[in-house]
Amino acid sequence: MARAPEVGSEIHKERNRTVLETAARVICEKGYEAASVQDIADACGLTKAGLYYYIRSKEDLLLEIMNYGMDIFEERVLLPVLTISDPVERLKACMERNIFLVTEGWSKEVTIILHEHDTLTGAARAQINARKKRYVHFLESSFEEAIREGRIRQVEPRVAAFSFLGMVLWIYKWFRPDGKIPSEQLAREMQNLFFGGLEIPAPPSAPPSRKGTNKK
Amino acid sequence: MARAPEVGSEIHKERNRTVLETAARVICEKGYEAASVQDIADACGLTKAGLYYYIRSKEDLLLEIMNYGMDIFEERVLLPVLTISDPVERLKACMERNIFLVTEGWSKEVTIILHEHDTLTGAARAQINARKKRYVHFLESSFEEAIREGRIRQVEPRVAAFSFLGMVLWIYKWFRPDGKIPSEQLAREMQNLFFGGLEIPAPPSAPPSRKGTNKK
Repeated sequence: MARAPEVGSEIHKERNRTVLETAARVICEKGYEAASVQDIADACGLTKAGLYYYIRSKEDLLLEIMNYGMDIFEERVLLPVLTISDPVERLKACMERNIFLVTEGWSKEVTIILHEHDTLTGAARAQINARKKRYVHFLESSFEEAIREGRIRQVEPRVAAFSFLGMVLWIYKWFRPDGKIPSEQLAREMQNLFFGGLEIPAPPSAPPSRKGTNKK
Repeated sequence: MARAPEVGSEIHKERNRTVLETAARVICEKGYEAASVQDIADACGLTKAGLYYYIRSKEDLLLEIMNYGMDIFEERVLLPVLTISDPVERLKACMERNIFLVTEGWSKEVTIILHEHDTLTGAARAQINARKKRYVHFLESSFEEAIREGRIRQVEPRVAAFSFLGMVLWIYKWFRPDGKIPSEQLAREMQNLFFGGLEIPAPPSAPPSRKGTNKK
């Protein structure tokens, strides 16, 4: 232990981050149940004892990865949009940022948060669930605000929030960074689809009917 | 074996279905890795040897559950809408039926198909993936048709298809049958949201500007 960098030092933090990212990659590839502590230590270039300097247990490691993923999410998606006063612009910016988070390099932490959502137990599970719920609540209250201000149609805010999440988070299941759809196009099309809809409305100003079908 | 019902008989088929549904419930509750063959046999009221009369292996059981789930999906969602000639009506009906499948009692098979998508290997995996891909292809080609016929805006059909799937399939993660949103309302709101969009368009026919900003 004498040679280990001091806890709280920059070097320690950096190494801790590297361990978390490496462990996230292994768990993402093998699944949490199948990935052994030895697999993770091997991938980190550490002995098992060396790995246990950074983590207390495998479940603790999973919790740390999820908290790390939520930190990145809050820093890149949630915090930058909180100050946007118009609720629709706030939601659109949030959607774009969340899409980029899923498509650009952070997808292994996102995948673990989404896919291992039933793996944690007890206090660890409650902690991550509370952080996820804050995001759902942010979306719901932004939709409520947009309805109050007459910016969007009447909709159940909970349905809107989970529709938003479903579209955006499902991306981790099908998107390929080397595929034919660039992430910018994906973000733009999903924003248009979600806020503007797909269907082409019937022509708004047909000439007044000569047959008088519009009379009341 | 002498007392076992003849393979192919109605009684055999019915028992086989019961075994599949019970196994699906156990796997859904515990996860595939954690659920043992003994757990599944116990829940079915069978000995392990008795269970092996119905299944060849645990992985074979998972494949059977997924195929059973896909059978139900095709019977209840896909087949009834294939004959609808208007592509937008076809997609709307498909969305409604898929939402009801997820919300009403079949969610354990759906959950397993979605959640254990990386668990199968080899030919079994290829078989289920091919069935899933047929659904994606059906959605993509329906969106393409709707664009060609001028019924929806220009959109990348793949983005539309996976947005549709994300909204609808994510429901298994948050919907509670005893919650405040009935599944009929959920289906109607998602149809409106997806096809009609959320945002209220700016008033279409503002009086001609007196400032002349519209002159060209």
